[in-house]
Amino acid sequence: MEIDYSNIKVIGFDADDTLWVNETYFRDAEAEFGKLLSAFETKNKIDQELFKKELANLPLYGYGIKGFVLSMVELALELSNNTVSNKTINAILNIGKDMINKPVELLDGVETVLQELSKSYKLIVATKGDLLDQERKLKQSGLLDYFHHIEVLSDKTESNYSKLLNHLDINPSEFLMIGNSLKSDVLPLINIKAHAIHVPFHTTWIHEQVTEKETNGKAYKTLSELSEVLDILN
Amino acid sequence: MEIDYSNIKVIGFDADDTLWVNETYFRDAEAEFGKLLSAFETKNKIDQELFKKELANLPLYGYGIKGFVLSMVELALELSNNTVSNKTINAILNIGKDMINKPVELLDGVETVLQELSKSYKLIVATKGDLLDQERKLKQSGLLDYFHHIEVLSDKTESNYSKLLNHLDINPSEFLMIGNSLKSDVLPLINIKAHAIHVPFHTTWIHEQVTEKETNGKAYKTLSELSEVLDILN
Repeated sequence: MEIDYSNIKVIGFDADDTLWVNETYFRDAEAEFGKLLSAFETKNKIDQELFKKELANLPLYGYGIKGFVLSMVELALELSNNTVSNKTINAILNIGKDMINKPVELLDGVETVLQELSKSYKLIVATKGDLLDQERKLKQSGLLDYFHHIEVLSDKTESNYSKLLNHLDINPSEFLMIGNSLKSDVLPLINIKAHAIHVPFHTTWIHEQVTEKETNGKAYKTLSELSEVLDILN
Repeated sequence: MEIDYSNIKVIGFDADDTLWVNETYFRDAEAEFGKLLSAFETKNKIDQELFKKELANLPLYGYGIKGFVLSMVELALELSNNTVSNKTINAILNIGKDMINKPVELLDGVETVLQELSKSYKLIVATKGDLLDQERKLKQSGLLDYFHHIEVLSDKTESNYSKLLNHLDINPSEFLMIGNSLKSDVLPLINIKAHAIHVPFHTTWIHEQVTEKETNGKAYKTLSELSEVLDILN
Protein backbone atom coordinates (compact mmCIF):
# COMPACT_ATOMS: atom_id res chain seq x y z
CA MET A 1 0.00 0.00 0.00
CA GLU A 2 1.60 3.27 -1.12
CA ILE A 3 0.75 6.23 1.04
CA ASP A 4 1.84 9.73 0.16
CA TYR A 5 3.19 11.60 3.18
CA SER A 6 4.49 14.61 1.23
CA ASN A 7 1.70 16.93 2.43
CA ILE A 8 2.38 16.33 6.12
CA LYS A 9 3.24 19.47 8.08
CA VAL A 10 2.30 18.55 11.62
CA ILE A 11 2.94 15.26 13.43
CA GLY A 12 1.03 14.28 16.55
CA PHE A 13 2.44 11.79 19.02
CA ASP A 14 0.51 9.71 21.47
CA ALA A 15 2.35 9.66 24.81
CA ASP A 16 1.66 6.52 26.92
CA ASP A 17 3.27 3.45 25.29
CA THR A 18 4.39 5.53 22.31
CA LEU A 19 6.91 7.89 23.93
CA TRP A 20 7.25 6.07 27.25
CA VAL A 21 6.27 2.87 29.08
CA ASN A 22 2.80 2.90 30.64
CA GLU A 23 0.67 -0.19 30.11
CA THR A 24 3.34 -2.38 31.71
CA TYR A 25 2.75 -0.57 35.02
CA PHE A 26 -0.98 -1.27 34.81
CA ARG A 27 -0.26 -4.97 34.16
CA ASP A 28 2.11 -5.02 37.15
CA ALA A 29 -0.53 -3.31 39.28
CA GLU A 30 -3.12 -5.88 38.22
CA ALA A 31 -0.74 -8.67 39.18
CA GLU A 32 -0.22 -7.10 42.60
CA PHE A 33 -3.97 -6.62 43.03
CA GLY A 34 -4.50 -10.28 42.10
CA LYS A 35 -2.06 -11.36 44.80
CA LEU A 36 -3.75 -9.17 47.42
CA LEU A 37 -7.10 -10.81 46.70
CA SER A 38 -5.84 -14.33 46.06
CA ALA A 39 -7.61 -15.62 49.19
CA PHE A 40 -10.94 -14.78 47.56
CA GLU A 41 -10.65 -15.59 43.87
CA THR A 42 -8.45 -16.92 41.07
CA LYS A 43 -6.13 -14.53 39.25
CA ASN A 44 -8.12 -15.07 36.07
CA LYS A 45 -11.47 -14.21 37.63
CA ILE A 46 -10.01 -11.15 39.37
CA ASP A 47 -8.56 -9.89 36.06
CA GLN A 48 -11.88 -10.35 34.30
CA GLU A 49 -13.87 -8.65 37.03
CA LEU A 50 -11.42 -5.76 37.22
CA PHE A 51 -11.76 -5.14 33.51
CA LYS A 52 -15.56 -5.18 33.82
CA LYS A 53 -15.41 -2.82 36.79
CA GLU A 54 -13.11 -0.38 34.97
CA LEU A 55 -15.39 -0.38 31.95
CA ALA A 56 -18.48 0.15 34.08
CA ASN A 57 -16.81 3.09 35.84
CA LEU A 58 -15.25 4.59 32.69
CA PRO A 59 -18.11 7.05 32.01
CA LEU A 60 -17.77 8.32 35.59
CA TYR A 61 -14.02 8.17 36.19
CA GLY A 62 -12.50 8.38 32.72
CA TYR A 63 -8.97 7.16 31.95
CA GLY A 64 -6.08 7.32 34.37
CA ILE A 65 -4.64 5.96 37.56
CA LYS A 66 -7.09 7.51 40.07
CA GLY A 67 -10.14 5.91 38.49
CA PHE A 68 -8.24 2.62 38.23
CA VAL A 69 -7.51 2.69 41.97
CA LEU A 70 -11.12 3.54 42.85
CA SER A 71 -12.26 0.59 40.73
CA MET A 72 -9.80 -1.74 42.49
CA VAL A 73 -11.05 -0.65 45.93
CA GLU A 74 -14.68 -1.15 44.87
CA LEU A 75 -13.95 -4.58 43.42
CA ALA A 76 -12.00 -5.67 46.51
CA LEU A 77 -15.08 -4.94 48.66
CA GLU A 78 -17.34 -6.80 46.24
CA LEU A 79 -15.19 -9.87 45.54
CA SER A 80 -14.54 -10.39 49.25
CA ASN A 81 -18.21 -9.92 50.20
CA ASN A 82 -17.12 -7.02 52.40
CA THR A 83 -14.55 -9.05 54.33
CA VAL A 84 -11.36 -7.63 52.84
CA SER A 85 -9.01 -6.18 55.47
CA ASN A 86 -8.23 -2.50 55.87
CA LYS A 87 -4.59 -3.40 55.36
CA THR A 88 -5.44 -4.65 51.87
CA ILE A 89 -7.43 -1.48 51.06
CA ASN A 90 -4.42 0.52 52.13
CA ALA A 91 -2.14 -1.62 49.96
CA ILE A 92 -4.42 -0.89 46.99
CA LEU A 93 -4.15 2.86 47.62
CA ASN A 94 -0.38 2.46 47.69
CA ILE A 95 -0.35 0.60 44.36
CA GLY A 96 -1.86 3.77 42.90
CA LYS A 97 0.59 6.12 44.58
CA ASP A 98 3.50 3.99 43.38
CA MET A 99 2.16 4.13 39.83
CA ILE A 100 1.86 7.91 39.93
CA ASN A 101 5.41 8.16 41.29
CA LYS A 102 6.98 5.84 38.68
CA PRO A 103 9.85 7.54 36.87
CA VAL A 104 9.32 8.13 33.15
CA GLU A 105 10.99 5.45 31.06
CA LEU A 106 11.40 6.56 27.43
CA LEU A 107 10.96 3.95 24.71
CA ASP A 108 13.81 3.11 22.36
CA GLY A 109 14.74 5.73 19.82
CA VAL A 110 12.21 8.33 20.97
CA GLU A 111 14.63 11.18 21.47
CA THR A 112 16.42 10.62 18.13
CA VAL A 113 13.14 10.48 16.25
CA LEU A 114 11.86 13.70 17.82
CA GLN A 115 15.17 15.43 17.21
CA GLU A 116 15.15 14.49 13.52
CA LEU A 117 11.47 15.13 12.83
CA SER A 118 11.44 18.47 14.64
CA LYS A 119 13.79 19.81 11.94
CA SER A 120 11.12 19.44 9.24
CA TYR A 121 7.78 19.21 11.01
CA LYS A 122 5.79 20.83 13.78
CA LEU A 123 5.37 18.24 16.52
CA ILE A 124 2.53 18.03 19.01
CA VAL A 125 1.45 15.60 21.72
CA ALA A 126 -2.14 14.33 21.79
CA THR A 127 -2.75 12.10 24.76
CA LYS A 128 -5.65 11.05 26.92
CA GLY A 129 -5.82 10.34 30.61
CA ASP A 130 -5.26 12.45 33.66
CA LEU A 131 -4.20 16.05 32.97
CA LEU A 132 -1.87 16.32 35.96
CA ASP A 133 -0.25 12.90 35.37
CA GLN A 134 0.40 13.63 31.71
CA GLU A 135 1.87 17.07 32.45
CA ARG A 136 4.12 15.57 35.11
CA LYS A 137 5.34 12.83 32.76
CA LEU A 138 6.02 15.31 29.97
CA LYS A 139 8.04 17.51 32.30
CA GLN A 140 10.01 14.54 33.63
CA SER A 141 10.58 13.15 30.15
CA GLY A 142 12.76 16.06 29.13
CA LEU A 143 10.95 16.06 25.77
CA LEU A 144 8.82 19.20 26.25
CA ASP A 145 11.01 21.41 24.06
CA TYR A 146 10.33 19.31 20.96
CA PHE A 147 6.61 20.05 21.04
CA HIS A 148 4.70 23.09 19.84
CA HIS A 149 1.55 22.05 21.59
CA ILE A 150 0.35 19.55 24.19
CA GLU A 151 -3.25 18.44 24.17
CA VAL A 152 -4.73 16.17 26.83
CA LEU A 153 -8.07 14.82 25.62
CA SER A 154 -10.71 13.19 27.80
CA ASP A 155 -11.13 10.64 25.01
CA LYS A 156 -9.60 10.17 21.55
CA THR A 157 -12.69 10.36 19.38
CA GLU A 158 -13.01 11.59 15.79
CA SER A 159 -14.86 14.64 17.03
CA ASN A 160 -12.17 15.51 19.59
CA TYR A 161 -9.42 15.14 16.97
CA SER A 162 -11.38 17.32 14.53
CA LYS A 163 -11.79 20.01 17.19
CA LEU A 164 -8.08 19.87 17.95
CA LEU A 165 -7.02 20.20 14.30
CA ASN A 166 -9.52 22.99 13.82
CA HIS A 167 -8.28 24.80 16.90
CA LEU A 168 -4.66 24.49 15.74
CA ASP A 169 -5.64 25.51 12.21
CA ILE A 170 -4.32 22.29 10.66
CA ASN A 171 -5.88 20.65 7.62
CA PRO A 172 -6.47 16.91 8.25
CA SER A 173 -4.49 16.03 5.09
CA GLU A 174 -1.46 17.79 6.60
CA PHE A 175 -1.62 15.90 9.88
CA LEU A 176 -0.03 12.58 10.78
CA MET A 177 -0.70 10.88 14.11
CA ILE A 178 1.74 8.29 15.50
CA GLY A 179 0.70 5.99 18.30
CA ASN A 180 0.38 2.49 19.70
CA SER A 181 -3.41 2.20 19.79
CA LEU A 182 -5.38 1.38 16.65
CA LYS A 183 -8.55 2.41 18.39
CA SER A 184 -7.32 5.75 19.74
CA ASP A 185 -4.38 6.84 17.58
CA VAL A 186 -5.09 5.38 14.14
CA LEU A 187 -8.71 4.65 13.15
CA PRO A 188 -10.28 7.97 14.22
CA LEU A 189 -7.61 9.82 12.20
CA ILE A 190 -8.10 7.76 9.05
CA ASN A 191 -11.85 8.34 9.42
CA ILE A 192 -11.42 12.12 9.42
CA LYS A 193 -9.06 11.97 6.39
CA ALA A 194 -5.88 12.57 8.34
CA HIS A 195 -2.89 10.18 8.35
CA ALA A 196 -1.79 7.72 11.00
CA ILE A 197 1.10 5.36 11.68
CA HIS A 198 0.70 2.48 14.08
CA VAL A 199 3.65 1.51 16.29
CA PRO A 200 2.34 -1.28 18.54
CA PHE A 201 3.56 -1.63 22.11
CA HIS A 202 4.02 -5.21 23.33
CA THR A 203 1.01 -4.90 25.63
CA THR A 204 -2.39 -3.46 24.75
CA TRP A 205 -5.25 -2.95 27.17
CA ILE A 206 -8.27 -5.02 26.04
CA HIS A 207 -10.36 -1.88 25.89
CA GLU A 208 -8.03 -0.50 23.18
CA GLN A 209 -8.20 -3.61 21.02
CA VAL A 210 -10.12 -3.53 17.74
CA THR A 211 -11.36 -6.22 15.36
CA GLU A 212 -9.86 -6.96 11.97
CA LYS A 213 -13.12 -5.80 10.43
CA GLU A 214 -12.55 -2.32 11.78
CA THR A 215 -9.08 -2.04 10.26
CA ASN A 216 -9.85 -3.67 6.89
CA GLY A 217 -9.03 -1.41 3.98
CA LYS A 218 -7.85 1.47 6.18
CA ALA A 219 -4.80 3.25 4.77
CA TYR A 220 -2.26 3.25 7.58
CA LYS A 221 1.16 1.73 8.08
CA THR A 222 2.26 -0.43 10.98
CA LEU A 223 5.89 -0.23 12.07
CA SER A 224 7.70 -2.51 14.45
CA GLU A 225 9.56 0.33 16.10
CA LEU A 226 9.32 4.09 16.24
CA SER A 227 12.69 4.79 14.60
CA GLU A 228 11.39 3.30 11.32
CA VAL A 229 9.32 6.47 11.02
CA LEU A 230 12.50 8.19 9.88
CA ASP A 231 12.81 5.88 6.85
CA ILE A 232 9.33 6.88 5.75
CA LEU A 233 9.32 10.58 6.46
CA ASN A 234 12.85 11.67 5.64
CA MET B 1 -10.27 52.76 42.42
CA GLU B 2 -10.94 53.51 38.75
CA ILE B 3 -10.07 50.69 36.40
CA ASP B 4 -10.20 51.12 32.66
CA TYR B 5 -11.80 48.13 30.95
CA SER B 6 -11.98 49.72 27.49
CA ASN B 7 -9.15 47.57 26.08
CA ILE B 8 -10.77 44.26 27.00
CA LYS B 9 -11.43 41.97 24.05
CA VAL B 10 -11.54 38.53 25.66
CA ILE B 11 -13.24 37.54 28.92
CA GLY B 12 -12.32 34.35 30.75
CA PHE B 13 -14.75 32.71 33.13
CA ASP B 14 -13.90 30.35 35.92
CA ALA B 15 -16.44 27.50 36.01
CA ASP B 16 -16.89 25.93 39.48
CA ASP B 17 -18.67 28.39 41.82
CA THR B 18 -18.63 31.09 39.15
CA LEU B 19 -20.93 29.58 36.51
CA TRP B 20 -22.39 26.81 38.66
CA VAL B 21 -22.51 25.45 42.22
CA ASN B 22 -19.58 23.23 43.22
CA GLU B 23 -18.03 23.92 46.60
CA THR B 24 -21.38 23.31 48.31
CA TYR B 25 -21.23 19.67 47.16
CA PHE B 26 -17.77 19.26 48.68
CA ARG B 27 -19.04 20.74 51.97
CA ASP B 28 -22.00 18.33 51.89
CA ALA B 29 -19.63 15.44 51.17
CA GLU B 30 -17.42 16.42 54.09
CA ALA B 31 -20.48 16.50 56.36
CA GLU B 32 -21.46 13.01 55.21
CA PHE B 33 -17.90 11.77 55.68
CA GLY B 34 -17.90 13.26 59.19
CA LYS B 35 -21.06 11.36 60.04
CA LEU B 36 -19.64 8.08 58.70
CA LEU B 37 -16.60 8.43 60.96
CA SER B 38 -18.38 9.95 63.97
CA ALA B 39 -17.66 6.84 66.07
CA PHE B 40 -13.94 7.58 65.79
CA GLU B 41 -13.50 11.34 65.99
CA THR B 42 -15.22 14.72 66.38
CA LYS B 43 -16.53 16.47 63.27
CA ASN B 44 -14.00 19.24 63.80
CA LYS B 45 -11.00 16.92 63.98
CA ILE B 46 -12.19 14.96 60.93
CA ASP B 47 -12.55 18.19 58.92
CA GLN B 48 -9.06 19.31 59.90
CA GLU B 49 -7.48 15.97 59.11
CA LEU B 50 -9.28 15.72 55.78
CA PHE B 51 -7.97 19.11 54.74
CA LYS B 52 -4.43 18.07 55.72
CA LYS B 53 -4.79 14.81 53.83
CA GLU B 54 -6.07 16.55 50.69
CA LEU B 55 -3.20 19.00 50.80
CA ALA B 56 -0.65 16.24 51.32
CA ASN B 57 -2.08 14.33 48.35
CA LEU B 58 -2.52 17.37 46.09
CA PRO B 59 0.84 17.00 44.31
CA LEU B 60 -0.08 13.38 43.51
CA TYR B 61 -3.82 13.58 42.86
CA GLY B 62 -4.41 17.21 41.81
CA TYR B 63 -7.83 18.85 42.05
CA GLY B 64 -11.11 17.08 41.56
CA ILE B 65 -13.49 14.53 42.98
CA LYS B 66 -11.45 11.33 42.41
CA GLY B 67 -8.48 12.57 44.44
CA PHE B 68 -10.88 13.80 47.12
CA VAL B 69 -12.45 10.33 47.40
CA LEU B 70 -9.04 8.61 47.55
CA SER B 71 -8.04 10.99 50.37
CA MET B 72 -11.26 10.23 52.27
CA VAL B 73 -10.66 6.47 52.02
CA GLU B 74 -7.06 6.85 53.18
CA LEU B 75 -8.09 9.03 56.11
CA ALA B 76 -10.89 6.66 57.14
CA LEU B 77 -8.33 3.85 57.47
CA GLU B 78 -5.96 6.08 59.44
CA LEU B 79 -8.46 7.75 61.79
CA SER B 80 -10.04 4.40 62.66
CA ASN B 81 -6.69 2.67 63.19
CA ASN B 82 -7.69 0.24 60.46
CA THR B 83 -10.97 -0.72 62.10
CA VAL B 84 -13.39 1.07 59.77
CA SER B 85 -15.95 -1.28 58.18
CA ASN B 86 -16.05 -2.23 54.49
CA LYS B 87 -19.56 -0.81 54.45
CA THR B 88 -18.18 2.61 55.36
CA ILE B 89 -15.48 2.41 52.68
CA ASN B 90 -18.19 1.59 50.20
CA ALA B 91 -20.28 4.53 51.42
CA ILE B 92 -17.28 6.81 50.82
CA LEU B 93 -16.93 5.55 47.23
CA ASN B 94 -20.63 6.30 46.76
CA ILE B 95 -20.23 9.85 48.07
CA GLY B 96 -17.82 10.37 45.18
CA LYS B 97 -20.08 8.80 42.56
CA ASP B 98 -22.99 10.93 43.78
CA MET B 99 -20.85 14.05 43.47
CA ILE B 100 -19.86 13.17 39.90
CA ASN B 101 -23.50 12.53 39.02
CA LYS B 102 -24.82 15.80 40.52
CA PRO B 103 -26.81 17.78 37.96
CA VAL B 104 -25.31 21.14 36.99
CA GLU B 105 -26.96 23.99 38.89
CA LEU B 106 -26.27 27.33 37.21
CA LEU B 107 -25.73 30.35 39.45
CA ASP B 108 -28.08 33.35 39.26
CA GLY B 109 -27.83 35.50 36.17
CA VAL B 110 -25.19 33.40 34.42
CA GLU B 111 -27.05 32.86 31.18
CA THR B 112 -28.09 36.54 30.84
CA VAL B 113 -24.54 37.73 31.49
CA LEU B 114 -23.04 35.35 28.92
CA GLN B 115 -25.72 36.28 26.38
CA GLU B 116 -25.01 40.00 26.79
CA LEU B 117 -21.23 39.81 26.93
CA SER B 118 -20.95 37.44 23.98
CA LYS B 119 -22.28 40.26 21.77
CA SER B 120 -19.21 42.40 22.37
CA TYR B 121 -16.47 40.07 23.63
CA LYS B 122 -14.91 36.72 22.93
CA LEU B 123 -15.67 34.48 25.90
CA ILE B 124 -13.58 31.55 27.11
CA VAL B 125 -13.68 29.19 30.09
CA ALA B 126 -10.53 28.66 32.17
CA THR B 127 -11.08 26.10 34.87
CA LYS B 128 -9.03 23.64 36.86
CA GLY B 129 -9.90 20.18 38.09
CA ASP B 130 -10.71 16.97 36.35
CA LEU B 131 -10.84 17.17 32.54
CA LEU B 132 -13.71 14.69 32.15
CA ASP B 133 -15.79 16.22 34.98
CA GLN B 134 -15.40 19.75 33.62
CA GLU B 135 -16.27 18.68 30.07
CA ARG B 136 -19.35 16.85 31.32
CA LYS B 137 -20.51 19.85 33.36
CA LEU B 138 -20.01 22.21 30.43
CA LYS B 139 -22.04 19.97 28.13
CA GLN B 140 -24.82 19.61 30.71
CA SER B 141 -24.83 23.34 31.45
CA GLY B 142 -26.08 24.20 27.97
CA LEU B 143 -23.55 27.07 27.94
CA LEU B 144 -21.01 25.62 25.51
CA ASP B 145 -22.14 27.75 22.56
CA TYR B 146 -21.19 30.98 24.32
CA PHE B 147 -17.52 30.04 24.48
CA HIS B 148 -14.81 30.25 21.84
CA HIS B 149 -12.44 28.11 23.83
CA ILE B 150 -12.41 25.84 26.87
CA GLU B 151 -9.20 25.37 28.80
CA VAL B 152 -8.87 22.95 31.69
CA LEU B 153 -5.68 23.70 33.62
CA SER B 154 -4.01 21.39 36.12
CA ASP B 155 -3.46 24.48 38.28
CA LYS B 156 -4.21 28.18 37.90
CA THR B 157 -0.73 29.64 38.16
CA GLU B 158 0.66 32.80 36.56
CA SER B 159 2.74 30.69 34.24
CA ASN B 160 -0.23 28.57 33.11
CA TYR B 161 -2.30 31.71 32.46
CA SER B 162 0.56 33.28 30.48
CA LYS B 163 0.88 30.14 28.36
CA LEU B 164 -2.87 30.15 27.71
CA LEU B 165 -2.96 33.82 26.64
CA ASN B 166 0.09 33.27 24.48
CA HIS B 167 -1.43 30.22 22.88
CA LEU B 168 -4.68 32.08 22.16
CA ASP B 169 -2.71 35.11 20.93
CA ILE B 170 -4.26 37.47 23.49
CA ASN B 171 -2.40 40.39 25.02
CA PRO B 172 -2.74 40.35 28.85
CA SER B 173 -4.06 43.95 28.79
CA GLU B 174 -6.94 42.78 26.58
CA PHE B 175 -7.93 39.93 28.90
CA LEU B 176 -10.33 40.00 31.82
CA MET B 177 -10.80 36.99 34.09
CA ILE B 178 -13.97 36.61 36.18
CA GLY B 179 -14.08 34.13 39.04
CA ASN B 180 -14.81 33.38 42.65
CA SER B 181 -11.29 32.59 43.86
CA LEU B 182 -8.85 35.40 44.68
CA LYS B 183 -6.02 32.89 44.67
CA SER B 184 -6.84 31.21 41.35
CA ASP B 185 -8.92 33.67 39.31
CA VAL B 186 -7.74 37.10 40.41
CA LEU B 187 -4.22 37.49 41.83
CA PRO B 188 -2.29 35.53 39.15
CA LEU B 189 -3.99 37.66 36.47
CA ILE B 190 -3.21 40.97 38.14
CA ASN B 191 0.39 39.78 38.52
CA ILE B 192 0.74 39.15 34.77
CA LYS B 193 -0.83 42.56 33.96
CA ALA B 194 -4.19 41.21 32.90
CA HIS B 195 -7.52 42.22 34.47
CA ALA B 196 -9.69 40.35 36.94
CA ILE B 197 -13.05 40.71 38.61
CA HIS B 198 -13.80 38.84 41.81
CA VAL B 199 -17.32 37.48 42.35
CA PRO B 200 -17.16 35.58 45.67
CA PHE B 201 -19.22 32.45 46.21
CA HIS B 202 -20.64 32.06 49.72
CA THR B 203 -18.26 29.18 50.46
CA THR B 204 -14.51 29.10 49.76
CA TRP B 205 -12.26 26.09 50.26
CA ILE B 206 -9.54 26.97 52.82
CA HIS B 207 -6.88 26.12 50.25
CA GLU B 208 -8.20 28.94 48.02
CA GLN B 209 -8.18 31.58 50.75
CA VAL B 210 -5.57 34.34 50.68
CA THR B 211 -4.37 36.89 53.23
CA GLU B 212 -5.17 40.59 53.13
CA LYS B 213 -1.48 41.22 52.57
CA GLU B 214 -1.64 39.38 49.26
CA THR B 215 -4.54 41.48 47.98
CA ASN B 216 -3.34 44.88 49.25
CA GLY B 217 -2.98 47.43 46.48
CA LYS B 218 -4.04 45.00 43.75
CA ALA B 219 -6.26 46.60 41.11
CA TYR B 220 -9.33 44.39 40.89
CA LYS B 221 -13.01 44.88 41.61
CA THR B 222 -15.16 42.67 43.83
CA LEU B 223 -18.83 42.32 42.92
CA SER B 224 -21.56 40.80 45.01
CA GLU B 225 -23.13 39.04 42.08
CA LEU B 226 -22.20 38.16 38.53
CA SER B 227 -24.89 40.28 36.85
CA GLU B 228 -23.19 43.45 38.12
CA VAL B 229 -20.50 42.74 35.52
CA LEU B 230 -22.93 44.14 32.96
CA ASP B 231 -22.95 47.56 34.68
CA ILE B 232 -19.20 47.73 34.42
CA LEU B 233 -18.59 46.37 30.94
CA ASN B 234 -21.53 47.66 28.95
